[in-house]
Amino acid sequence: MPESALPIPPLFHTSPEDVRALCRSNTAGTVTAGMAAGFIQANLVILPKAYAEDFAEFCRLNPKPCPLVGMSQPGEYDTPTLGRNLDIRTDLPLYRVWRDGVLTDEVTDILSFWQGDFVVFALGCSFSFENAFMACNVPMRHFETGQGVSMYRTNIACTPVGPFSGPVVVSMRPFRSPDLIKATEISSRIPLAHGGPVQIGFPEEIGIIDIEKPDYGARTEIRPHELPAFWACGVTPQAVLAASRLPFAITHAPGAMLVTDIPIPDYENLVSEHSGKII
Amino acid sequence: MPESALPIPPLFHTSPEDVRALCRSNTAGTVTAGMAAGFIQANLVILPKAYAEDFAEFCRLNPKPCPLVGMSQPGEYDTPTLGRNLDIRTDLPLYRVWRDGVLTDEVTDILSFWQGDFVVFALGCSFSFENAFMACNVPMRHFETGQGVSMYRTNIACTPVGPFSGPVVVSMRPFRSPDLIKATEISSRIPLAHGGPVQIGFPEEIGIIDIEKPDYGARTEIRPHELPAFWACGVTPQAVLAASRLPFAITHAPGAMLVTDIPIPDYENLVSEHSGKII
Repeated sequence: MPESALPIPPLFHTSPEDVRALCRSNTAGTVTAGMAAGFIQANLVILPKAYAEDFAEFCRLNPKPCPLVGMSQPGEYDTPTLGRNLDIRTDLPLYRVWRDGVLTDEVTDILSFWQGDFVVFALGCSFSFENAFMACNVPMRHFETGQGVSMYRTNIACTPVGPFSGPVVVSMRPFRSPDLIKATEISSRIPLAHGGPVQIGFPEEIGIIDIEKPDYGARTEIRPHELPAFWACGVTPQAVLAASRLPFAITHAPGAMLVTDIPIPDYENLVSEHSGKII
Repeated sequence: MPESALPIPPLFHTSPEDVRALCRSNTAGTVTAGMAAGFIQANLVILPKAYAEDFAEFCRLNPKPCPLVGMSQPGEYDTPTLGRNLDIRTDLPLYRVWRDGVLTDEVTDILSFWQGDFVVFALGCSFSFENAFMACNVPMRHFETGQGVSMYRTNIACTPVGPFSGPVVVSMRPFRSPDLIKATEISSRIPLAHGGPVQIGFPEEIGIIDIEKPDYGARTEIRPHELPAFWACGVTPQAVLAASRLPFAITHAPGAMLVTDIPIPDYENLVSEHSGKII
């Protein structure tokens, strides 16, 4: 596989298990972007069992914003399909605790909150396709500026289930044509990380009135000969969850994802095929 | 697999071998577009052995315009990897014979031209990805109007080998965003049919000055909220071959392709995954 010409973050080639160990000891920082390339990172949602069936169905019906990577049995915090030696209560850098839809705590572990009826959901995250973009020499403006990605509420409604409903939220990255093509091809091969884009070039078609004013994250400059491309985003389930005002829920804090052991399928070929020029 | 909502051509679900039998008896018409969906169709180039090694290398170095699907031994006209019971001398609808770069004959078989030192090259063709677009409900303007696709010479030079050199020629199809995303994702999964697009949205970046004036084929209307997408095109090797002024060569006639038995990899999944809405 050709080496990337872009700057590579320090934990890019570190294994998921090692990244989780660093998170467990609170020595990996609070943002897992650029870590453990080739593996699926995930949004975390923990709900009491009473809401789990509806939420699982919500994910199943809205796979672009909520790609379900894994789900635990009630009370299980070491789901082996998500990670070897996993303890979901300690292995993310930062957690948020919600009561009645209101954020009440931000903590580095949830040992003291854990209950036997909790069900864990892991939903794919754009960090996985962004790592693949980096490995394939597709530069991203929000990495260059060090600011967060721009995110927007759209006029696309999620298919509602029980208490769960709301608009699809998208993230935006501007690209010139060759990188746009690579980004589309690469992300479409990683459905567990939101898959391919949902819109290219015409933000108003998905209800985005002012591209200069994201609903979440920072503004991103779009330069001449660039087109904005929009991907379904993991902020969707977070917004849906807050709006549902469940009595109790736990999520990851923004950027502090679960790094799973689940490999991106066919990752080595994906990177080799897309590292060079498109023609 | 969901059924396509688009009009499906008569021989869309016919097997390659049956299509070839119809071509052999000159009862399939002279254009193989829309036939034998799920299989690779190919541009045909037949050269005396003296030029075969250079041409094979030219294809290897220019895989987007010249994806090498198969190649015969000298004198072999029934290459089994291309098709069961194949006779390359009769199984295309129409052939062109070239002497010193000049078209001298257009014939329905090449039995009387065949020589023992001929080497057959099959190079992938856009008909294969267009069939996949149709199966996935991606409409194409040039099918709606019944005119040919628009093609343009670009400022991208093929990597030259021996007598073979020239610019990459591209075909253009305009799409709205959801179909553009599907078309990019689908075509990128079929590298034997030119793979993904080489440019989206900015024709001037590849040296196309006037999109209204194609170098080959008919003009295509681009409507508001559509972006033009460009794919490397099989006219590239044809133009390269004519420019090389070889003493003798045989090709297919435009649109009269070799329908091979080579399946598009993972075709059933490709179609199921891309037949519906993108979100």
